[in-house]
Amino acid sequence: MSKGLPKRSEDYSLWYNELVKKADLAENSAVRGCMVIKPYGYSIWEKMQAELDRMFKETGHSNAYFPLFIPKSYLSKEASHVAGFAKECAVVTHYRLKNAEDGSGIIVDPDAKLEEELIVRPTSETVIWSTYKNWVQSYRDLPLLVNQWANVVRWEMRTRLFLRTTEFLWQEGHTAHATKKEAEEETNRMMNVYAQFSENFMALPVVRGRKTESERFAGADDTLCIEAMMQDGKALQAGTSHFLGQNFAKAFDVKFATKEGGLEYVWGTSWGVSTRLMGALIMAHSDDNGLVLPPKLAPIQVVIIPIYRKDEELDAITEKANEIMADLRKVGVSVKFDNRDTYKPGWKFAEHELKGVPLRIAIGPRDLENGTIEIARRDTLTKEQFELTSQPISEKISGMLDEIQKSIYSKALNFKSEMTTEVNSWDEFKKVLEDKGGFLSAHWDGTAETEEKVKDLTKATIRCIPLDRKDEAGVCVYSGKPSKGRVLFAKAY
Amino acid sequence: MSKGLPKRSEDYSLWYNELVKKADLAENSAVRGCMVIKPYGYSIWEKMQAELDRMFKETGHSNAYFPLFIPKSYLSKEASHVAGFAKECAVVTHYRLKNAEDGSGIIVDPDAKLEEELIVRPTSETVIWSTYKNWVQSYRDLPLLVNQWANVVRWEMRTRLFLRTTEFLWQEGHTAHATKKEAEEETNRMMNVYAQFSENFMALPVVRGRKTESERFAGADDTLCIEAMMQDGKALQAGTSHFLGQNFAKAFDVKFATKEGGLEYVWGTSWGVSTRLMGALIMAHSDDNGLVLPPKLAPIQVVIIPIYRKDEELDAITEKANEIMADLRKVGVSVKFDNRDTYKPGWKFAEHELKGVPLRIAIGPRDLENGTIEIARRDTLTKEQFELTSQPISEKISGMLDEIQKSIYSKALNFKSEMTTEVNSWDEFKKVLEDKGGFLSAHWDGTAETEEKVKDLTKATIRCIPLDRKDEAGVCVYSGKPSKGRVLFAKAY
Repeated sequence: MSKGLPKRSEDYSLWYNELVKKADLAENSAVRGCMVIKPYGYSIWEKMQAELDRMFKETGHSNAYFPLFIPKSYLSKEASHVAGFAKECAVVTHYRLKNAEDGSGIIVDPDAKLEEELIVRPTSETVIWSTYKNWVQSYRDLPLLVNQWANVVRWEMRTRLFLRTTEFLWQEGHTAHATKKEAEEETNRMMNVYAQFSENFMALPVVRGRKTESERFAGADDTLCIEAMMQDGKALQAGTSHFLGQNFAKAFDVKFATKEGGLEYVWGTSWGVSTRLMGALIMAHSDDNGLVLPPKLAPIQVVIIPIYRKDEELDAITEKANEIMADLRKVGVSVKFDNRDTYKPGWKFAEHELKGVPLRIAIGPRDLENGTIEIARRDTLTKEQFELTSQPISEKISGMLDEIQKSIYSKALNFKSEMTTEVNSWDEFKKVLEDKGGFLSAHWDGTAETEEKVKDLTKATIRCIPLDRKDEAGVCVYSGKPSKGRVLFAKAY
Repeated sequence: MSKGLPKRSEDYSLWYNELVKKADLAENSAVRGCMVIKPYGYSIWEKMQAELDRMFKETGHSNAYFPLFIPKSYLSKEASHVAGFAKECAVVTHYRLKNAEDGSGIIVDPDAKLEEELIVRPTSETVIWSTYKNWVQSYRDLPLLVNQWANVVRWEMRTRLFLRTTEFLWQEGHTAHATKKEAEEETNRMMNVYAQFSENFMALPVVRGRKTESERFAGADDTLCIEAMMQDGKALQAGTSHFLGQNFAKAFDVKFATKEGGLEYVWGTSWGVSTRLMGALIMAHSDDNGLVLPPKLAPIQVVIIPIYRKDEELDAITEKANEIMADLRKVGVSVKFDNRDTYKPGWKFAEHELKGVPLRIAIGPRDLENGTIEIARRDTLTKEQFELTSQPISEKISGMLDEIQKSIYSKALNFKSEMTTEVNSWDEFKKVLEDKGGFLSAHWDGTAETEEKVKDLTKATIRCIPLDRKDEAGVCVYSGKPSKGRVLFAKAY
């Protein structure tokens, strides 16, 4: 196979695009900005979904499904919400095609115009809160803890596979609570679920933080987020969790009878992660040879490749491979025997490297004689000979997979900390941003004006106010006005 | 809780609608024809999805994801396909909203008109085959065995929860093969997967059959189907599997290099089941008290309800319930302890009956004294006292769940055979259809004219030509012309 992957150091952006395509993760479709997620890419997404879904259920949430379409009037009910989404809405105006009378082909039937246009959901707060109105009467109906796995559409002018697409897949949690405190706790809980998922499964360390007012979700009173650092020094927002206050409850008149006999608006949250996480996963760990996948999300954790010339050799290798596979499957390791006779071993090595299979086992006739196998790690590109009698193979491989998971995480954690720089002057800010990139930990005066100005001048935005930041009096790196603590600036995806 | 479910014998249709709503399965949304699948309903769908997905993967398929939108021109590429779907397509024409200049609110921005209108997928053959063109070059790329879980939209004028909705959830398999034989085998294999799923998990016996030409999928050369019988004597098509011939390969120019060096069009199939299965599941087994769920698809298989007056009693019951739950969970039984103090036992009994929980265990103070529990079966509405020392509880309950699964299936199988009547004259046809309904096994002359005429006169359609029908010479029940075998007519959902 011809890999022909560009080097990250030469063109990071092209490297990413080519990697996504060549590793069979996704490709552009004929519809502008919409991607096709290919089977291999989708199998990674399925592993992510399964873990997230389990975590949501463990924290008390149930899945449900709400309509794809939103009446235009619904979207308008919460003022800042519609302002945030109006510019990127796909609009359904008709419900039928017909043959053109002049024989020119199929046209939209003008007689089938909708009375009220429908918006393809860019997010589902409005349609869900209009439903919650009927689900919530009394405090006994609360909390309402619902999640939905769905596709959403936001009409983007510039798109990139996984990172920014017109249609994307995501989950969106929507919860309703009796008190402000409970809703705030939920907002925080789900941000932490995302952070744990990112760190424990994606091997991707994140900063837990709060968005500034201007970066908040349209319709939220507060937005928490997790921010990750990519290899090119740009940040990526990997998940958000919003405290909606009573905004949507008021817009859709969702009230409940309290235990004490009163009638109050409920408090809401919403939170989501999307196929964008695929982009983060790819960019965070991969190298010039292709994808590097953390074992916990790899669809295939181990590939076994036979090295042989004669068919008798293959038979003997197959027998050994079957034994190894049986042992590995018993302990839950996913393993594939790549015995295709249409490709040579070297080609297969390159393909599985490109696709990020964490461990590769090669078995040749000499290995059979010696009772050994060759094990190669994808993340470090190192190899070792392993004596099959020295340790049970399942123990060896499980141990290596754990080690790889930890090692990938440590590497990313080190990188994130190397790429976080405290800067204390505007010159320093500009220099570090240009020379190195990464997170710039800097004082900010708290105004939207400064935030905007910095963005205009440098393209860096405030990624978040870290939740664990120290109280530290200082002066704003741009305006020189007083500041109570540092925030993280970065260029971002 | 007030059940207030209408009786099936009085108004089957109203009974169904009310049951779907009262059992918290689904409800109508504000968007015409689009439903909200509520958490309890969705959890049943998730169980169906999990089993089907496992079966698809066991037969070699991988999941992928293709765009929601289809360019209008794509839909038109296969002539009979567009003819079949043009009348029910939701069309996206614009991609932005804006504030009206006269201050009247939010309007569709006329400057944001799409050059080519996009259709919201009613099914994905066109967008998938346009993609397959790039995925298939040589025989080595075949077979291509892909499935997608997705939402689709067909603009329906008359809708009913689960049975016919404008938007519905489904899976659609799309495969490409080197030979006609392989594609035909695949068509047959997936029809059988559906039949096995229906019989083994939904406890719903089906007829495996072939659609007549006029009932075929738009764009297929052959459509296989499974047909089930509902309690009101109407049939329900529960799944279809299409042999597409080379129709889509030709429409989208999908060719492959053969082993022998030739260049040929590939052969295709597609197959799907949808949330319509939820309707079938509900209608097939439920009764005037509510839902009856086969244990294999019940989100909660056992509910334990404490019967007590004093808090000390509840404590002792809770301890016993925890023991039982631990034992049941060890063997994979899903169980819930309904200890809500806001509802009385009688109310809870009715609620869990309505929701179709297969087994209910009640424990009161006297049970604790006697070492017994009361076990009630939802399907038969029978109760028994069970001595806890007589048999391990996990064995008892697992056994009962198996028994219920079988018993529900047998009941449905008997019903289906009672509701299948051989008719041999037109008078008999009309009389049986009117008095009894069900499947009418009758001779048909093989013409679309007769089929159409029978439909006009009686609303009965040919559900299928059973795959296991006997060769039997006869005369058409309507036209009197010669026939080679019987087909199944019925009124249908």
